[in-house]
Amino acid sequence: MPRFHRLEKAEAIASEEGLDALIISRLSNIFYLTDFKGGSRLISSPDGEAFILVGGVDLTAAKEHFSGSGVQIVHIKIGEKLDDLMLSILNELGVRSIGYDELPLGTYERLIERFGADGLKDVAKHMWELRKAKDKDEVARVRKACSIAVKGMEVASELMEPGRTELEVVGEVERAMRRAGSEEHPFNLIVASGKNSALPHALSSEKPFKSGDLVVVDIGATYKGYVSDMTRTFIVGREEAWQRDIYDIVLRAQEEARRAVRASVKASDVDAVARNIIKRAGYEPEEVFVHSLGHGLGVEVHEPPRIGPGVEEVLGVGYTITIEPGIYLPGKGGVRIEDTVLVLEDGHEVLTPFPYGLRPREEA
Amino acid sequence: MPRFHRLEKAEAIASEEGLDALIISRLSNIFYLTDFKGGSRLISSPDGEAFILVGGVDLTAAKEHFSGSGVQIVHIKIGEKLDDLMLSILNELGVRSIGYDELPLGTYERLIERFGADGLKDVAKHMWELRKAKDKDEVARVRKACSIAVKGMEVASELMEPGRTELEVVGEVERAMRRAGSEEHPFNLIVASGKNSALPHALSSEKPFKSGDLVVVDIGATYKGYVSDMTRTFIVGREEAWQRDIYDIVLRAQEEARRAVRASVKASDVDAVARNIIKRAGYEPEEVFVHSLGHGLGVEVHEPPRIGPGVEEVLGVGYTITIEPGIYLPGKGGVRIEDTVLVLEDGHEVLTPFPYGLRPREEA
Repeated sequence: MPRFHRLEKAEAIASEEGLDALIISRLSNIFYLTDFKGGSRLISSPDGEAFILVGGVDLTAAKEHFSGSGVQIVHIKIGEKLDDLMLSILNELGVRSIGYDELPLGTYERLIERFGADGLKDVAKHMWELRKAKDKDEVARVRKACSIAVKGMEVASELMEPGRTELEVVGEVERAMRRAGSEEHPFNLIVASGKNSALPHALSSEKPFKSGDLVVVDIGATYKGYVSDMTRTFIVGREEAWQRDIYDIVLRAQEEARRAVRASVKASDVDAVARNIIKRAGYEPEEVFVHSLGHGLGVEVHEPPRIGPGVEEVLGVGYTITIEPGIYLPGKGGVRIEDTVLVLEDGHEVLTPFPYGLRPREEA
Repeated sequence: MPRFHRLEKAEAIASEEGLDALIISRLSNIFYLTDFKGGSRLISSPDGEAFILVGGVDLTAAKEHFSGSGVQIVHIKIGEKLDDLMLSILNELGVRSIGYDELPLGTYERLIERFGADGLKDVAKHMWELRKAKDKDEVARVRKACSIAVKGMEVASELMEPGRTELEVVGEVERAMRRAGSEEHPFNLIVASGKNSALPHALSSEKPFKSGDLVVVDIGATYKGYVSDMTRTFIVGREEAWQRDIYDIVLRAQEEARRAVRASVKASDVDAVARNIIKRAGYEPEEVFVHSLGHGLGVEVHEPPRIGPGVEEVLGVGYTITIEPGIYLPGKGGVRIEDTVLVLEDGHEVLTPFPYGLRPREEA
């Protein structure tokens, strides 16, 4: 197996910043750099030495994964302290300055003691910067995770009948996505009906659907460590005028915001497109659209950039982001429509193609 | 709704430590104190004032949950900084010293600047101390989460046939647990077959079972915010002698370790019972039993105490813990048997009753 090519990117960060080593603790960063799920810490030095510290539960998997890669495996035995092992490796390497992505407070305090505030540098932003633009292989994984979620959404859309429960539908969607190859649910799936559809982070329950319920279905899948995220809103039975009204506004906001997506556009400008449509339709975004328009995703379901008000950052080719406006009317119900999209030079590609509409099976 | 009675426990911590306020950031601690799932930070002062800081996605749910409770809701609007809001509340309260359970590094540095190192105290241990012994209501929730997991295990045990895939079985188990009321999977369920059964944290795949595969099934459910955790190991078809051998050793280790569970016994002593049985059976625990015997669980799936070597802590009445020895033979396969148990004055109660045995349906 060749050396992990992304590990060289971490080494480049250390070199640029004049640091003797990097300590990577965030599991998604360890995965991004090495394709290994697990491990407690990764130490990388600019001269190409790298160490992965793993507990017993990951040891066999690590030996297989890193075999021949040059990355040295350090087994944290039961009772051994991770920080002690880490410091002894840093001492052996003769390291005098280090960068870190994140650290528990206690570890931070020990490192400050050892290296001084000048010898410690937060490189979290550099790591996120690396992760924003997905390469071809990463896009392929996100694409597959998206196609799995679409299969889950097909199943959900067939179950919008009175008497089905929120949790029952969650279970059917999960089963379908597992059969399609999802290795992990990237978040607790949401099926929220009736007035719960007005809670963006609703917890599903055994509540049965009633005729006239809006049902928000927010799901995602994982394929080779990369995730997807999509939402559709359905109606059980026939909708009332206010439901059709907010659905149409959110759909227009979603479509127009997507149309604004391209490389070099500011994240806040994309958000503003959706927010303005909702405002012009007579709803106060501060009251009814209570979250950002979207977020990056990749190894994690929420990654930079945030697509929201005040975010000056511009989008780049290869970013995978969500576009997910919503209108939530407390006590009544809500609508959210979300796709995962790939940012292109001149536009975007929807990676979660699934029909829109409150009753997509009839409307198709 | 009465004031949340556990919030008074947080106030007591502040009083005892002579602190003007507590800042609680760990979501499971916020849930433990208030029964609210969500929120970004909870501020509690000994004179009974409390504030929950929530983003827009949690606002409607928070208003409903905290209505009439005396806990004040602070809405973190889009673009507002959580730390700024928090500091302005602390200033208004005239606070000069605070305790915290955990903090991001950046927040910690701002608080050090504002209050000095003497005005800041880590009270994480106090919070964990509160959470270890479950009260009657908490035990009832864990018990229900356990009964849901048992239903999932019944489904898994019926699917141990050549050709079924790991992910297919995960999906069927998830579906069954959702139907039984599980509101969230507390961890990514594990169905690990063949040589993957030797990886304690295996990721399930589309690999089909073959005759002669050991299959480790490690699952859990969530009910009203409390979780369960259980593992059984099955055989597809007929076992070989070495498989029966390690199964019997692990089962003996699990049963004997459970028999050692009672209030006032040291966690390390319970662990030693299992470790010694494995050792006396001719296997080197350091090589084949690469994790602790168990862990506490409640709102989170891993809570103190760890049940492992070197842990001097003693168990107490009302602790809910797992007992889960294993033997893992890299490249061949592994066995793990796990129950969630309730610690009693004079023994324990198994909360995840499900038959043992490589083929429990035949052996029952």
